Amino acid sequence: MKQRTHTCGELTEQQVGEKVILLGWVKKRRDLGQVIFIDLRDAAGQVQIVFNGEKQPEALAVAESVRSEYVLEVEGEVVQREESTVNPKIDTGRIEIIIEDVRVLNAAKGLPFVIEDEAELNEDVRLKYRYLDLRRPMMQDTMKLRYRTTKMIRDILDEEKFMEIETPMLTKSTPEGARDYLVPSRVHHGDFYALPQSPQLFKQLLMVAGFERYFQIARCFRDEDLRADRQPEFTQVDIEASFMGKEQLISMMEKMMQRLVKDLRGEDVETAFKRLTYQEAMNRYGSDKPDTRFGMELVDISEQVKESGFKVFSSTVENGGVVKGICVKGIAPEYSRKDLDELSGFAEIYGAKGLAWLKVSSESEVKGPIAKFFNEEEQKQLIEVFEAEEGDVLFFAADKIRVAWDVLGALRTKFAKERNLIPSNTFDFLWVTEFPLLSYDEDEKRYVAEHHPFTRPVAEDEELLTTNPEKVRAEAYDLVLNGYELGGGSQRIYERGLQEKMFTALGFSEEEAKEQFGFLLDAFEYGTPPHGGIALGLDRLVMILADRTNLRDTIAFPKTASASCLLTNAPSSVEQSKLDELHLNVQEKKKEETKEK
Amino acid sequence: MKQRTHTCGELTEQQVGEKVILLGWVKKRRDLGQVIFIDLRDAAGQVQIVFNGEKQPEALAVAESVRSEYVLEVEGEVVQREESTVNPKIDTGRIEIIIEDVRVLNAAKGLPFVIEDEAELNEDVRLKYRYLDLRRPMMQDTMKLRYRTTKMIRDILDEEKFMEIETPMLTKSTPEGARDYLVPSRVHHGDFYALPQSPQLFKQLLMVAGFERYFQIARCFRDEDLRADRQPEFTQVDIEASFMGKEQLISMMEKMMQRLVKDLRGEDVETAFKRLTYQEAMNRYGSDKPDTRFGMELVDISEQVKESGFKVFSSTVENGGVVKGICVKGIAPEYSRKDLDELSGFAEIYGAKGLAWLKVSSESEVKGPIAKFFNEEEQKQLIEVFEAEEGDVLFFAADKIRVAWDVLGALRTKFAKERNLIPSNTFDFLWVTEFPLLSYDEDEKRYVAEHHPFTRPVAEDEELLTTNPEKVRAEAYDLVLNGYELGGGSQRIYERGLQEKMFTALGFSEEEAKEQFGFLLDAFEYGTPPHGGIALGLDRLVMILADRTNLRDTIAFPKTASASCLLTNAPSSVEQSKLDELHLNVQEKKKEETKEK
Repeated sequence: MKQRTHTCGELTEQQVGEKVILLGWVKKRRDLGQVIFIDLRDAAGQVQIVFNGEKQPEALAVAESVRSEYVLEVEGEVVQREESTVNPKIDTGRIEIIIEDVRVLNAAKGLPFVIEDEAELNEDVRLKYRYLDLRRPMMQDTMKLRYRTTKMIRDILDEEKFMEIETPMLTKSTPEGARDYLVPSRVHHGDFYALPQSPQLFKQLLMVAGFERYFQIARCFRDEDLRADRQPEFTQVDIEASFMGKEQLISMMEKMMQRLVKDLRGEDVETAFKRLTYQEAMNRYGSDKPDTRFGMELVDISEQVKESGFKVFSSTVENGGVVKGICVKGIAPEYSRKDLDELSGFAEIYGAKGLAWLKVSSESEVKGPIAKFFNEEEQKQLIEVFEAEEGDVLFFAADKIRVAWDVLGALRTKFAKERNLIPSNTFDFLWVTEFPLLSYDEDEKRYVAEHHPFTRPVAEDEELLTTNPEKVRAEAYDLVLNGYELGGGSQRIYERGLQEKMFTALGFSEEEAKEQFGFLLDAFEYGTPPHGGIALGLDRLVMILADRTNLRDTIAFPKTASASCLLTNAPSSVEQSKLDELHLNVQEKKKEETKEK
Repeated sequence: MKQRTHTCGELTEQQVGEKVILLGWVKKRRDLGQVIFIDLRDAAGQVQIVFNGEKQPEALAVAESVRSEYVLEVEGEVVQREESTVNPKIDTGRIEIIIEDVRVLNAAKGLPFVIEDEAELNEDVRLKYRYLDLRRPMMQDTMKLRYRTTKMIRDILDEEKFMEIETPMLTKSTPEGARDYLVPSRVHHGDFYALPQSPQLFKQLLMVAGFERYFQIARCFRDEDLRADRQPEFTQVDIEASFMGKEQLISMMEKMMQRLVKDLRGEDVETAFKRLTYQEAMNRYGSDKPDTRFGMELVDISEQVKESGFKVFSSTVENGGVVKGICVKGIAPEYSRKDLDELSGFAEIYGAKGLAWLKVSSESEVKGPIAKFFNEEEQKQLIEVFEAEEGDVLFFAADKIRVAWDVLGALRTKFAKERNLIPSNTFDFLWVTEFPLLSYDEDEKRYVAEHHPFTRPVAEDEELLTTNPEKVRAEAYDLVLNGYELGGGSQRIYERGLQEKMFTALGFSEEEAKEQFGFLLDAFEYGTPPHGGIALGLDRLVMILADRTNLRDTIAFPKTASASCLLTNAPSSVEQSKLDELHLNVQEKKKEETKEK
C-alpha cells in the first residue's frame, strides 16, 4: 500500500494538474464501456475517478472487475470537469481524477444492504452487520457528532478547572437503586464485584480527598429490563464539585449546554433556563420531565366538579382524589365517538380506570356521553376554565393525583406528536427542582430514595426527615430537554449524622448502614467539604443533538432489548472449566424456561 | 456556605487590601494564645490566615476549637506580611489574611496518618483511607499529571483527525489471551458476557466500518494473578488507523511522546527513536524491553569456549546451547567470593542451573573457581572480548539461549540499579520490532500468538506460516521506555484467507474459528481496508512521567495484589436471591480452601 497524498474529500480545483494517490472504497461505479466512472469514498468524503480505456487499458481492466465497497489504491491526475458535468451536490464536484494506476487492496462480496441513508432496514440486520451499517453517512455523522460532543464537554470542563479522574469498574455491590451486574471473583471464593451504576460513591470520596472539581465521561451499568431508550451499559457525563453550591453549578451547566447547541447545531439558547418545581411540573404538565415546547397544560377542575351530578367526578374528589383535564384543540371533527372511547385503553396503560371526554360544540356547550351530567352553567364553566373553543375536545382523568398526572401527561405528549404541535430545531431546556427526597415503596413497605440516598434534603425540611419523610424536598435538580430527562443532580449530604438519619429513614438498621456504607460514613468524619454534582446521559444528549429518536443510533455497538449483541453473539456459554475457576455452577433450567426457548 | 471570592493558592500581593472569602482545610495550626495562625489549604494551594483575639475574639474562639483537616469558611482582609515573616517556600508567602469571620463547615476527628508526603505509611493503611492518602501533595500531583497526560493525548489525537469512539464493556468471551472476567446474564440463562481485555476486535470492526482513525482511552480487564505492576483493571490508550502504514504510525507516536515529555517534564527527546529487532534486543540486552540507558551488553562467547577445557561451557555449546556473559565494571574489590557465589540463587529464579563468574585481576588474568579451566591465552581473550579491566567481574550463563538471555538480562538490570548506573531525567525511548509471530506453548502443545491472533506476519514470511511457524516474524512494534514496555502495536491481518491460515496455525479447527471469530472473518469480506494500530498502557506511562515506581500510585482507587479494594471491601458476598436471578450457585469450598482462610 502506498501512502496517500490526499483524502478523497479534500480535493478541489486547487489541486488541478497535480498527481495524487488516493485510498478508499468504491461507492458507485458507472460502466460506459471504454470509460468507467467510480465514486471513491473515504472518511473525509468522495471524489469521482475516471478510467479511460484508450489511455490506460490495464487500469480499465481492473476497474471492470471491481464492485461496490472494494478497497482501491489509485494514482492519477486531478482535472477540471467540463462545466456541464460539474456536480454541485458534492464538495469535490468541480474536478475528477484521471486514473493512471490502480490496485485492489481488498475485494467485497455482495452486501446484505446498500450503504445509503435511504435504505429501509430491519434493525436486527443493521446490528448484525453493524460494521456496514456504520458506513452509512447518517451513522458516520452521528458518531462524529458524539465525538465532538464529548470533546467539547471535556474542553469546557477543563477550562472550568475540572479534572477527569477514572474510578473503578470492579466495585462493591450495594443494595439501593437498580439491579447490579455482578462479576464473580476467582480469588475470593463466593464473592462478587459489581459493575458501577454510576461513580456516585467514588466521586464523593474524591471530594473528601480534596480534588474539588472532578468529572468523568464514565461507563455505567444497569441490569434492568430494557425499554426502547435504555441500554445495559450507558455513558454518563459525571460531574462533582466541592464548595460550589447549586446556583454556581446550574449556571455552569447552562453555559455548557448553550455552547454545545450553538457549536453543534447553530442554534441560540437563552440562559437562565426556565425552572419548575416538581409540584408545578406535575400539576401543569403531568410529568417531571415536561416537554414545554407546546402548551396543552393540565387543568385541575376538582373544585368545579366536587358537587357536580357526575358521580364519577364528585366521588373521586370526595375520596381524596382529583379531577384534571386537558383541552386538545380542534380535533373534534376528526375524532369519532368510537375513536375517543378507544382512548380509554391508552389511559389504562397508565393505571386509570377510563378516560372521560367532552367535545366542545359551541362556546357554551359540550357534547358526548357524559355531557348530560353537567348543567348549562357547568358546561359553560368547563369551557371557560379550559379556554376552549368549538371543535376542541376535553379529556378528563378522575383518580388519585399520581394517576391523573400520568394519564394526562402521556395523553398530552401523544396528541402533541399526532397534531405536529412540536416545533423542530428548538432546544427547550428546563430545570425541575424540589423533588421529593423519598417516596414510599408499596412492595418493599419502606421509603426509597427518589434520586439516591446521598441527596441532601432542603435545609428547612431536614427536621421532617424523622417525622414526615414524604414531605421532605430534596436539594436536587433535573435537567430536562425537549421532554427528555438529560440528567439529574443534587447537593449531597456531607455530615455523618445526617447521612445516618437518611439511612434510618430508608429502613436500614445501624448495622446494615455500616456494613454497606461504613466507609462513606467514616470518610465524612475526616473533614468532608460541602459538595454536589450532576450526571448527564451522554447517549440521550447526543440523540437529541443528532435529531435522532433511537438511542441505539448514537452507540457504535449497542445491545438489543434483550441485552444481546447481534454482531458478536454476546452473551454466550462458557466452558465448565472456566466456571470451576470461578467456583460457580449454573442452575438447571426450570421446565417453563426450557419451554419458552 | 458562602461563595468564595478566591482560591487559597491564587492570592498574591495584588489582592492586598481586598476582602476575601476562602474555603478550605486546616493544614496546620499554631496557637500563640491571643493569636492563632492557620495554614488553610484548598486544591489550588495554601495561604496563612491569622486570628487576632484582640480584634476578633469570637473568631479566635472558633479557631481555638479547630483541628487539622477541619473545613472552614473564612472572611478577612489580605495584608502584606512584614519582611521578616515572609515565607519564600510558598506562592502566597508574601501575604496573610486577617480573619474577621469564620465558620466551621465540617469537623475532622483524629487522622490515622498525617497528610504529608514524608509520612512513612503502610500501603494497606493508605488504601483503606485512600480519601486521605489522596490529599497528600504527591498524590494530588500524580493525579493531576495523569489528567494532563490523558488530556494532551486526546488533544494530540484530535489534531491528527482521530476520533474517540466507545466500544462495549459487556462483550463476548474469547479463548485466546489472558483469562477473562465474566459477567453472568440474567436474561440468557447460563450465558456470560466477558469484560474486554482490550477493544481489539471492536477497533478492527471500526476500521471495517470506515472510520479510518479511531482512538479510545479504554478500560481493560484481565483476571490474572497479579504482580506488583499489574492491576485487574487498567487503562489503555487504544489507537487504530486505516491506510496509515507502520512508518506513519510510528512517526506520529514519536511526536506524541516527544510532546508529552517536553510539556510534562520539560525534557527534550530526540526523534526518530532507536530501533532494535527482537533478536538484537535479546542478544544484546537479554530482554525484549531493554533499558538502554546504560551499557553492560551481553557478549556471546560460545565460539571462544566451545573447545575450552571447561566442560560446563563446551558441552552446553555442543548440545545446542549458548554461553553468554556480561562484564560488571569495578565491583571486584567489593564482592567476596561468597557474595558472588550467592548470585547463583538469583540466576536460578530465571531457570539457570547456576552462575559462573570470574574476577579480572589484571589486563590478562582472571581469578575465581573456574579460572583454572582457562589457559593464559584463553583468559586474555576473554578479557579482550568483554573489553574488561582490572577490578571488573565477568558473569556467565551457559544454557539454552532463552535462559541465558533471561538470566543475564535480569542480572544486568540488577547491577545497574545497585551501582547507580541509570541516569535520572532521561527518557530513553526505543522500538522493538520483528517479534516472532508465534511461540510454541509446551503446556498446550500448540502455537500461541506472541501478541494476538490478528497481528500480520511480515510479508516475506507469510509462506512460512504453514511450513515453519516459529520462524515467522510479526509486523509488530513495541514501544519501550526506560526498560518498561509502554505498549505494543502491529499491522493487522485484513484478508479472510490469511486470518484463517493464522487460526489454523494456532490449532483452531475451522468450526472453532467460525464459532469464535466468524463475525470478524465475515467482516473481512466486505471491503476491509489495510489497518494497524497500537495500544499504550496509560498507568505505566503516567508512572514513568511522574517518576514513581508503584503503579498503584497512579490510580485513584487501585486494588491490592489479591484484587481487593480495601476501601469498599470489594469483592463481597451477595444474597442467594440475587444469584438465583442469575441462575447461579456458588460451589462449596473444598477442604483445603476452607483451611487456608
